[in-house]
Amino acid sequence: MAVYTDVSAEDLGRFLAGYDLGELLSYKGIAEGVENSNFLVHTGSGHYILTLYEKRVAAGDVPFFLALMEHLASRGITCPQPVKNRSGQALGELCGRPAAIVTFLDGMWMRRPDAGHCAAVGEALARMHLAGADFAGQRRNTLSVTGWRPLFEQAADRADSLQHGMRATIEEELGKLEKSWPRDLPQGVIHADLFPDNVFFLGDRLSGLIDFYFACTDTLAFDVAICLNAWCFEPDHSYNVTKGRNLLAAYIKTRPLSDAERNALPMLARGAAMRFLLTRLVDWLNVPAGALVQPKNPLEYFRKLRFHQKAASVHDYGLPAEGTRA
Amino acid sequence: MAVYTDVSAEDLGRFLAGYDLGELLSYKGIAEGVENSNFLVHTGSGHYILTLYEKRVAAGDVPFFLALMEHLASRGITCPQPVKNRSGQALGELCGRPAAIVTFLDGMWMRRPDAGHCAAVGEALARMHLAGADFAGQRRNTLSVTGWRPLFEQAADRADSLQHGMRATIEEELGKLEKSWPRDLPQGVIHADLFPDNVFFLGDRLSGLIDFYFACTDTLAFDVAICLNAWCFEPDHSYNVTKGRNLLAAYIKTRPLSDAERNALPMLARGAAMRFLLTRLVDWLNVPAGALVQPKNPLEYFRKLRFHQKAASVHDYGLPAEGTRA
Repeated sequence: MAVYTDVSAEDLGRFLAGYDLGELLSYKGIAEGVENSNFLVHTGSGHYILTLYEKRVAAGDVPFFLALMEHLASRGITCPQPVKNRSGQALGELCGRPAAIVTFLDGMWMRRPDAGHCAAVGEALARMHLAGADFAGQRRNTLSVTGWRPLFEQAADRADSLQHGMRATIEEELGKLEKSWPRDLPQGVIHADLFPDNVFFLGDRLSGLIDFYFACTDTLAFDVAICLNAWCFEPDHSYNVTKGRNLLAAYIKTRPLSDAERNALPMLARGAAMRFLLTRLVDWLNVPAGALVQPKNPLEYFRKLRFHQKAASVHDYGLPAEGTRA
Repeated sequence: MAVYTDVSAEDLGRFLAGYDLGELLSYKGIAEGVENSNFLVHTGSGHYILTLYEKRVAAGDVPFFLALMEHLASRGITCPQPVKNRSGQALGELCGRPAAIVTFLDGMWMRRPDAGHCAAVGEALARMHLAGADFAGQRRNTLSVTGWRPLFEQAADRADSLQHGMRATIEEELGKLEKSWPRDLPQGVIHADLFPDNVFFLGDRLSGLIDFYFACTDTLAFDVAICLNAWCFEPDHSYNVTKGRNLLAAYIKTRPLSDAERNALPMLARGAAMRFLLTRLVDWLNVPAGALVQPKNPLEYFRKLRFHQKAASVHDYGLPAEGTRA
């Protein structure tokens, strides 16, 4: 939950004067999201989300994110749509920060997703990957394998304060990941952060995807691996194979996984666990005084990593092994 | 900013099933308010505010607050209106907490109120006091003079850690307040927390009052003194006499202050500064680990108290002294 930058009514009114959205009627900071400041804005023409991009989002990347949301929507993916101002620009500046207005999307995120929700997210992810196939934008994933060691170096000397042996385990695992990371799998636009709080449902129907601010060009199956980590573990950190089967089966029904992608899945899942373990570890060890955001516990992903290290094949994730080369 | 209790879509859906508000379409935690958890809820019939009353609000007091909002609205004061469920109840329970739905009010609160806003709040406060005159409910103000010493005792031994001499200053001031506190002034329903974030404007027009969760039965002029503290000081803690004059002049145009009330105003302003100094001091010294709310700095009210201690009469607050007995 976060609003890092408060906005005065006068400043917001001036910003909105550049848009055809009618009069400003109200705005409230939203206690969701950990990277940016988000406001729910009511104007004469409806409800919108205003986002101020805070320092962890590079200003130069925002046009990529906004263009991607437009592209995906034009291909039938329900996601927030950037609203352009009278000059045709979706990106502006407010309180010294890059700022954009996007359409408001109804729907609720599932605090306790069940196996049915996992199937829905598997299908939506595959549809998003297909819809992104002809997107022209490119953005390197700074949080993939080459980005992990610099993160680890920020946290290494204090990692064992969280759990004895964590430093050595990460060090050894990083070496394996750097050596064995799959580099020849199908690439494309990935969401890279499709956690439950970024997927909206209305009743049991998936109604939209939000928060594309980690989206990038990377291995499509890595996105699947991120979702397995984010959706298919129970609160006690045990893997729920029914959820995994549902997610994978729904994904491959829309976008089949090649044998190479299937074989790589355990390694990709290890990498996905490592990516979230490391960013959480760095955040955990660097909580500023007076922080308004409670950092997420890195141990959750340390335990998930342990699971993936023991997985022998995609079969352990719930997908039947047939069709997979031995 | 705060959402202390997260609510799942399933739980909220079940709660809303008891109301005639249509289908749940979305809800988002609001990063405002420091006492309760607030959500902006969108249903088939419109937008609402859902409040979960957290531990600092006594469950037994909530019916008083809800009845007051209904009463004031029936007397022409724009404030959120409690929505009743199918059993005719405005107060329910959600996630183990007392919970209520109120109507959504458009409007923005002023981060940098000017003298015009101060006049508007003075008039609105007087109108609220008149509108509350025939309200049957009663609630003792637990944060008036008899409540201050117990607060001080929680903080006394660490008060000097904030500013040298604070403990002795508060101790001495408390003695004076307890001895000289005005007890025979007109009583009624007061808001008791009418800070800028609880007053909405649309353009320059005051459009509504919110957050009645400190409202109680107390000295009406004490509410004026709270507003002088909350609205008429600059960010550097200097008193802006133009703002004070505007607030007081607008108030007395709607509800004249008696001579006794005018004479008591400096003492009431000292008490109001003491009340917020003490609650902020206790909060400041008791921030729990992982707190999601940044406590407000008590020193602001220590400085305001110093100003009030030097005030000789209501004239120092901007009101002409004529009509005041010497």
